[in-house]
Amino acid sequence: MDIKFIKSENLKTKPDQNALGFGKYFSDYMFVCEWDEGQGWHDARIQPYAPIMLNPASMVLHYAQETFEGMKAYKSPKNEILLFRPEMNARRMANSNERLCMAIFPEADFVQAVEELVKVEADWIPTAEGTSLYIRPFMFATEASVGVHPSKKYTFVIVCSPVGAYYPEGVNPVKIYVEEEYVRAVRGGTGFTKCGGNYAGSVAAQAKAEKLGYTQVLWLDGVERKYVEEVGTMNVMFKINNEIYTAPIEGTVLPGVTRDSIIALLKSWGYTVHETHLAIDDLMAAGDKGELEEAFGTGTAAVISPIGELNYRGHIVTINDFKTGELTQKLYDTLTGIQWGKVEDPFNWVRVVK
Amino acid sequence: MDIKFIKSENLKTKPDQNALGFGKYFSDYMFVCEWDEGQGWHDARIQPYAPIMLNPASMVLHYAQETFEGMKAYKSPKNEILLFRPEMNARRMANSNERLCMAIFPEADFVQAVEELVKVEADWIPTAEGTSLYIRPFMFATEASVGVHPSKKYTFVIVCSPVGAYYPEGVNPVKIYVEEEYVRAVRGGTGFTKCGGNYAGSVAAQAKAEKLGYTQVLWLDGVERKYVEEVGTMNVMFKINNEIYTAPIEGTVLPGVTRDSIIALLKSWGYTVHETHLAIDDLMAAGDKGELEEAFGTGTAAVISPIGELNYRGHIVTINDFKTGELTQKLYDTLTGIQWGKVEDPFNWVRVVK
Ligand SMILES: Cc1ncc(COP(=O)(O)O)c(C=O)c1O
Ligand SMILES: Cc1ncc(COP(=O)(O)O)c(C=O)c1O
Repeated sequence: MDIKFIKSENLKTKPDQNALGFGKYFSDYMFVCEWDEGQGWHDARIQPYAPIMLNPASMVLHYAQETFEGMKAYKSPKNEILLFRPEMNARRMANSNERLCMAIFPEADFVQAVEELVKVEADWIPTAEGTSLYIRPFMFATEASVGVHPSKKYTFVIVCSPVGAYYPEGVNPVKIYVEEEYVRAVRGGTGFTKCGGNYAGSVAAQAKAEKLGYTQVLWLDGVERKYVEEVGTMNVMFKINNEIYTAPIEGTVLPGVTRDSIIALLKSWGYTVHETHLAIDDLMAAGDKGELEEAFGTGTAAVISPIGELNYRGHIVTINDFKTGELTQKLYDTLTGIQWGKVEDPFNWVRVVK
Repeated sequence: MDIKFIKSENLKTKPDQNALGFGKYFSDYMFVCEWDEGQGWHDARIQPYAPIMLNPASMVLHYAQETFEGMKAYKSPKNEILLFRPEMNARRMANSNERLCMAIFPEADFVQAVEELVKVEADWIPTAEGTSLYIRPFMFATEASVGVHPSKKYTFVIVCSPVGAYYPEGVNPVKIYVEEEYVRAVRGGTGFTKCGGNYAGSVAAQAKAEKLGYTQVLWLDGVERKYVEEVGTMNVMFKINNEIYTAPIEGTVLPGVTRDSIIALLKSWGYTVHETHLAIDDLMAAGDKGELEEAFGTGTAAVISPIGELNYRGHIVTINDFKTGELTQKLYDTLTGIQWGKVEDPFNWVRVVK
């Protein structure tokens, strides 16, 4: 793919690395490419970050034909730019787009676009402990038509946002509310994709949990409201009697890159990992009996988020005395170590951008 | 609400009333209003139809916090502008927005905005037999932030599109494929709202049905994949042994304005209407025994769409010899007669725009 470069006339002042937060600042450039039926992808370019003009009838504003990805670029101690398994994001986006009948951006071009953009924006990758450059590829339907059908036009964009350390004061457990009223996904739906609609539908449950004093929700399956699926926008894992349990990838749960990597690490350390249906009653019972040793969410933003408390129908289980578990901490240290190029990368996950 | 009027410098040439199609042409003006946290709704205006500028990080492009409505304006034989139960669309949009944690546009302001816009666009309401002005109110999240949370900014827009007669050659039955793989909605999800995500997720099933030679899908419930819900983007009704069956409004099915109106008409004519769970097996059995006398979808676009054939797992049932049923035709004639101001309106549904 040939990517045209359009220079920006004035660059932004970079924000303070100690007050980045998440997704608040955006870098100077963005990657843009358009697709038209009959023509395919065209006009790939890295151009100044600028507003997008949309016809009010653009399908994305009505029927949410839109998908996205989330990944990070890191600066290594040797000042190299590192990406973590970007080909998995490329593949997942293709899967999302297939489910939504959208155009598919070729996986190799996806990785190339990310690489070229982060090279241009190398100075935007923060270097303070725990910081990184969050990369947001996204695609949306732009045909101006109010009939429901696959759009004949799409735009693919990648923007970058320098993000702060997720745990400036060290990894800390959170309280999770088990959600029974709202459902995130159901088999036959779009749960395995990163499509906008999944997130729009989930905001109400999150707001409810926050009102009750919880950080996030634990989603149950949409059919029986019985089996554990994800926590907020992360996959979730439980250590029970020294074995690990997580929901299987069967169409409702997002196949997380972090989830996949954590499972590989755990297996390499000799742990048994059950990708299986875990009933919420069994989970709470394990908690009551003291067999639920650790619990944590996994995702690109926080990497690992330990769970200190579960509330299911008012029944409360505290996990590991509301302290980060030993295995949780080891997984966090190892995975972030690999991602930031500080420890050995036995799985060849890290890609150095040349 | 005070609505500012911004005049357009050049008006468009109106399209040929006999080749309007659906949702392809848009009128000269649009209604726009913005909401900001702390400030509320502001800058209500009717302005020239023009592109919308969005920051690439606008939440609507990532998390699909977006809802819409669909309604029509008609020209009566006396040349009055008529709306059909616009307060129901206003209410439904408020319900959609509540579910998605979006700002709510006051219902009276919604109706006022629609009325003022159609008055400005009176010349855009086509007059040929069966044509109307389709009105599309929609709202979307515009805060520039890539964290998942309720947006702090929204834009509400109304655009208008002159649309052709849905059945230029008379009402005609369609073939419907009963969908078992894909699911549209599940209890606890967003099925009862008009949010974009519901439609993005449904395109794949529609594409599959078309490939198999069918016009649309019949959706089954997401839990047991057993009970009949909707057909495509319409509610669905069945006449079995002279009684009417349609899915109940319990969170998965859209509460259609047409559905509600048809039920009222049917009851006023003495029919028994069951708003109940109808199993697909029972429906097909009724078809086999010759007890399924008529079937039709209901929605604003087509008003009524008769179903001539159902295919469930390869088992085919033909309804009323693939001809429009007597009751279906009577409902269509009565409801469109009321909507276009040609027959008496016993329910006071029609609103004359003064
Ligand atoms: C719903 C959901 N589950 C899980 C994840 C974790 O996926 P990943 O590890 O690829 O970031 C995400 C994304 O961050 C998500 O949005
Ligand atoms: C999913 C769905 N069901 C049913 C309907 C019918 O609703 P109404 O009669 O209000 O147009 C619509 C909208 O047209 C719809 O999108």
